[in-house]
Amino acid sequence: MPRIAYFVPGPLSSSILGPRELDRRRSYLASLAFPETEVDVREATGGPESIESVAEECLAMPAILSAIPELESEGFDAVLIGCFDDPGLGGARELTRMPVIGPAQASCHLAAQLGDRFGILTVVEEVIPLLYRLMRSYGLQNHVTDIRAVDVPVLKLESQKKDVLDHLTLEGQAVLAAGADTLILGGMTLGFLDIAKSLEARLGVPVVDPVLASLKAAEGQLAMGARHSLRAYPPPRKKLVPVAV
Amino acid sequence: MPRIAYFVPGPLSSSILGPRELDRRRSYLASLAFPETEVDVREATGGPESIESVAEECLAMPAILSAIPELESEGFDAVLIGCFDDPGLGGARELTRMPVIGPAQASCHLAAQLGDRFGILTVVEEVIPLLYRLMRSYGLQNHVTDIRAVDVPVLKLESQKKDVLDHLTLEGQAVLAAGADTLILGGMTLGFLDIAKSLEARLGVPVVDPVLASLKAAEGQLAMGARHSLRAYPPPRKKLVPVAV
Amino acid sequence: MPRIAYFVPGPLSSSILGPRELDRRRSYLASLAFPETEVDVREATGGPESIESVAEECLAMPAILSAIPELESEGFDAVLIGCFDDPGLGGARELTRMPVIGPAQASCHLAAQLGDRFGILTVVEEVIPLLYRLMRSYGLQNHVTDIRAVDVPVLKLESQKKDVLDHLTLEGQAVLAAGADTLILGGMTLGFLDIAKSLEARLGVPVVDPVLASLKAAEGQLAMGARHSLRAYPPPRKKLVPVAV
Amino acid sequence: MPRIAYFVPGPLSSSILGPRELDRRRSYLASLAFPETEVDVREATGGPESIESVAEECLAMPAILSAIPELESEGFDAVLIGCFDDPGLGGARELTRMPVIGPAQASCHLAAQLGDRFGILTVVEEVIPLLYRLMRSYGLQNHVTDIRAVDVPVLKLESQKKDVLDHLTLEGQAVLAAGADTLILGGMTLGFLDIAKSLEARLGVPVVDPVLASLKAAEGQLAMGARHSLRAYPPPRKKLVPVAV
Amino acid sequence: MPRIAYFVPGPLSSSILGPRELDRRRSYLASLAFPETEVDVREATGGPESIESVAEECLAMPAILSAIPELESEGFDAVLIGCFDDPGLGGARELTRMPVIGPAQASCHLAAQLGDRFGILTVVEEVIPLLYRLMRSYGLQNHVTDIRAVDVPVLKLESQKKDVLDHLTLEGQAVLAAGADTLILGGMTLGFLDIAKSLEARLGVPVVDPVLASLKAAEGQLAMGARHSLRAYPPPRKKLVPVAV
Amino acid sequence: MPRIAYFVPGPLSSSILGPRELDRRRSYLASLAFPETEVDVREATGGPESIESVAEECLAMPAILSAIPELESEGFDAVLIGCFDDPGLGGARELTRMPVIGPAQASCHLAAQLGDRFGILTVVEEVIPLLYRLMRSYGLQNHVTDIRAVDVPVLKLESQKKDVLDHLTLEGQAVLAAGADTLILGGMTLGFLDIAKSLEARLGVPVVDPVLASLKAAEGQLAMGARHSLRAYPPPRKKLVPVAV
Repeated sequence: MPRIAYFVPGPLSSSILGPRELDRRRSYLASLAFPETEVDVREATGGPESIESVAEECLAMPAILSAIPELESEGFDAVLIGCFDDPGLGGARELTRMPVIGPAQASCHLAAQLGDRFGILTVVEEVIPLLYRLMRSYGLQNHVTDIRAVDVPVLKLESQKKDVLDHLTLEGQAVLAAGADTLILGGMTLGFLDIAKSLEARLGVPVVDPVLASLKAAEGQLAMGARHSLRAYPPPRKKLVPVAV
Repeated sequence: MPRIAYFVPGPLSSSILGPRELDRRRSYLASLAFPETEVDVREATGGPESIESVAEECLAMPAILSAIPELESEGFDAVLIGCFDDPGLGGARELTRMPVIGPAQASCHLAAQLGDRFGILTVVEEVIPLLYRLMRSYGLQNHVTDIRAVDVPVLKLESQKKDVLDHLTLEGQAVLAAGADTLILGGMTLGFLDIAKSLEARLGVPVVDPVLASLKAAEGQLAMGARHSLRAYPPPRKKLVPVAV
Repeated sequence: MPRIAYFVPGPLSSSILGPRELDRRRSYLASLAFPETEVDVREATGGPESIESVAEECLAMPAILSAIPELESEGFDAVLIGCFDDPGLGGARELTRMPVIGPAQASCHLAAQLGDRFGILTVVEEVIPLLYRLMRSYGLQNHVTDIRAVDVPVLKLESQKKDVLDHLTLEGQAVLAAGADTLILGGMTLGFLDIAKSLEARLGVPVVDPVLASLKAAEGQLAMGARHSLRAYPPPRKKLVPVAV
Repeated sequence: MPRIAYFVPGPLSSSILGPRELDRRRSYLASLAFPETEVDVREATGGPESIESVAEECLAMPAILSAIPELESEGFDAVLIGCFDDPGLGGARELTRMPVIGPAQASCHLAAQLGDRFGILTVVEEVIPLLYRLMRSYGLQNHVTDIRAVDVPVLKLESQKKDVLDHLTLEGQAVLAAGADTLILGGMTLGFLDIAKSLEARLGVPVVDPVLASLKAAEGQLAMGARHSLRAYPPPRKKLVPVAV
Repeated sequence: MPRIAYFVPGPLSSSILGPRELDRRRSYLASLAFPETEVDVREATGGPESIESVAEECLAMPAILSAIPELESEGFDAVLIGCFDDPGLGGARELTRMPVIGPAQASCHLAAQLGDRFGILTVVEEVIPLLYRLMRSYGLQNHVTDIRAVDVPVLKLESQKKDVLDHLTLEGQAVLAAGADTLILGGMTLGFLDIAKSLEARLGVPVVDPVLASLKAAEGQLAMGARHSLRAYPPPRKKLVPVAV
Repeated sequence: MPRIAYFVPGPLSSSILGPRELDRRRSYLASLAFPETEVDVREATGGPESIESVAEECLAMPAILSAIPELESEGFDAVLIGCFDDPGLGGARELTRMPVIGPAQASCHLAAQLGDRFGILTVVEEVIPLLYRLMRSYGLQNHVTDIRAVDVPVLKLESQKKDVLDHLTLEGQAVLAAGADTLILGGMTLGFLDIAKSLEARLGVPVVDPVLASLKAAEGQLAMGARHSLRAYPPPRKKLVPVAV
């Protein structure tokens, strides 16, 4: 029975959402998984509570890397990085032969199959430029038409779920007017709101949920025995040295 | 329980491979599917026995389109197009809300996630230019480094399986030398030889099997409730008229 | 004396436009041809009356392929595919050494020489996504700025010619505002309305007529002895098998 | 009766080839033109005898510009720039509503229609980088696979015609090995050697002759009434001031 | 002590701005240079007073080329081409091993480092298409979002400095709305107005001044001993022949 | 007097090269700086001794970020990131208005001005894929032809300087054969070997030294008052939380 870890790269249970949010996410993931899959949730003990900038990505990276051997020794078979910006994806892959799934990468390649050009709806404006750079580094810059933000703080998304859906609808309409035929929810917390289908119904185009897209990518790759390329993600030659800052 | 049809766009059972090949493919697919998935195989009653040119793709297209409503009325939930060139993909999607999976599209987007640049190993040289045009139409031309052929006739692949693996190894080495970090088997019959893992062991890079990649794409999309975009594949306004040639 | 066939991939003479429309097109083409060229019109006996979707393209393809040897045996020297989406272009070229002209390909490469960035004005909205994919498969995605539709049914274009010109003017202004410097009429029936010069006068930019662009491409290629590349369009190895659907 | 000028941007008749070469080119062009076309040859009275560098292009540009109003007042209807690097193309178009044809632009857009990827065989190595920049400025960088030179001085091409054909064959084979499916003779003097068909026979792929490609582009555009876009080539506001260096 | 020449490719001192403008530019450049740099200004004695079209670029080119050996023999170590369109850049580099700086090239590569996507604010609308082609020839077409003009004649910019700043602010806002994160003043006379910092303060994004960008590029390249590539700008084999028009 | 910090993102002075290497680099940088610039060297107290993988980049990032406010409070005006892969560049820029220079970014944009297409010679093979992804994220993927490694461990480069130069020569020849016209030394330790000019002499093309390129970029930007765009690198809203791993 394949075991998949959803790794939150920050101390979510110490945030205002509390430990219950971890449980909620575990249950939500379990409800989405194939019966033969086991999904569990882990979190980092340090680092930023939420990632809304490149700087916060940078701070979270060592925790992501150090989680990899721990998750392996716990017996997990694949890891979902719990942040839509895919922080540490390349580094983590260099350290393991397990599939490591970046939600942005999985979501955008799915969207590029459901239509020709996608737009991304994300949380805060500050991440828009880093997402454009991410699209370029994935070679998907010609598939993305527009990236827009609802501009509700991440940790307030859940308490303002109804408003968030309205904001997403408005921004989604703007993205569609710019030529997109498919949308992506560009934030994991947006995904855990379980609103993709509601937004889809309002806007009439596919809305990719990054939680689902990542989970199904991991389950698919495990079932296929697919592994990332050692030529793209070669293991470091030197023993990794922990950082003290 | 989701039901997926693998549709061979030609009369495979009348070829030298005979009806047993259909059964073999059905069993192979069943062995790869998640337990909760049912997979069946259907074939066209006319058209070319194998597709090794654009002209043969063109001839197969009406059969692919007319299969769509039949498969729907049989209760299928998704369709895999049984040809790596993805013939009729756009037309079929216009006619249904079921996921229709093109093996090249599913395989190439998977390969682009396992590494940075992929090469394709296909059957006959004649399809190389059409595959390059297909990559361009998918916006993946910058992800593909090289496409090479083993040049064994499709219907002889199975009886010459050992030789085919040797040919694939040689051509794969040439593709890797040109900079690829990931390979794709560019033919469904190559996929049904069940040799991707052997080739992977020989070459040390991921080898995407289009049969597996298509099946897992379909299962994932069904589980997600993902549907192709109506803006990218709008239904025809006019009633479709059958063609008599 | 070179003989060029304009091949309508559907039973136009059985449509509400009737056999007179075929005659009208023959005369119009004759009036545009160089004196030393003979142009004639042929049509398919089956398939959709007009092509306004990928599905209809697919249905028309076998008729286009089976026309190729017939037109050759009638003594034609080149073929114009009578549909702006260039259905069957690759397949037809694989079957003959005659120039086979796709109107979209000829028009877009001409437009890319008259200016730097072109827009396309087409008939119905449903073909916009397929035209974008076509531009990508031709490697022209960076030359096209916008594609818009007048949304008048193809078979009503002629009876509403005045309105169509007004619609084209409005949509053309929108395309120009988006940065195009050159326009293309993205439909053969639009071309046969003989309105490109009127639109050009209204909008102040070149308006490429696909009928003229295709005809002059064919005449030019015949005069040059230019032939499509066998490496890009290799002849199928196997004898083609007719499809019965 | 349309009159087309082939304008040599240098004093060819004072070169070692002498005035007979101008006559030879006039006759050759006349033999290629449609019966209803009149072609004549003009040359600049100053500037470099042949153009084999950007610097020489720069020196030739004023002569090209000053020729435009003279050719117009002589009653010409279109101009072919007699150099494959298309020097002065943009400036000349700003000064006239006549079609001004750049041989590289016309040849490359033709080649991109005959196949998917073309290579260029030019005269001297020094022009290779400028041709790559030209391809980029035309947005054709993804269509060109390779540019190679025979490295025979321009003014000796004709006396060494047999050797040149052998060199072109060798270099052409190298370009084809790099993936091209179509070739272009990247020099007007190469075109006037009348060897494209011989090379085509040897190499088995289309070989675009820039003399023919330019002439047929001009005849086609004249017949269509096609004019370059004023938005891409706006006329200068100020009166042009001649340069004395 | 490195000596840098700012070369105006036209008779600026004979324009309505008079010889004082040359002195003003010399002082302005001196005020911007590092202490160890000497900057002087030279101008062409013929050609257009200002360059606002490709045609005027063409006319200025021979003067630019003939200046190169003169500036070398005067003991200069680097040359700034005094026109944002970089006329004659390639030709000039072929003739010397001194750094020759094109302001557009230096400014755009700087802007691409300060942000992800830049817009250009230029003087007259007529140069917009040539600037887009220039961006393409530099391979920067995906970095530029928009190019807009203030449409004040070059020679009136200085007397209308306050208005120009207001125009630039308005056009700059439009460019930013289209997605740019960085702006470039697309004209040398705009640079010499010394308004980049004022515009930066108004718009909140970096505004690249092409005078400063060119000067610092030259000083940097001289300090590094950087030289343009002989493979990209090979010296002409033949002795250059002056042009008499 | 502008003060520039060269920040080594690891404990170089504790490596086998020892504290003398820091002094050597300080002196070398001082010898290259303009007289009015002060350059000093700082290093991280933790993290990997050298960076030869994405994983090591990730580990170094928090140290880079935490250095930014410290360097500001020390009175520095600009920072050079002491690693060719530009780790933490985006995050660091979000935290300061000082110029933060990434050596790869500065070197590649310089190389793209000295020629048309550059190649990179780096230290170990493992970084080649990350450098390709970096080029894509900078939008420079079409400017780079090839990246090759000498495969000498970073900390042994200096003791094997003669061999390294020979290796670089061989790999450089291979890169030039693949079409590059300009080379970049893709490692800071390679730059500090002070061998770029020797390699340039051997290979006949410009060789960009990333130490020099970064320093001159910083000095130029400081002199210009150029600042990275707040739209591309917006400051994080939340207070940054240190990470304990």
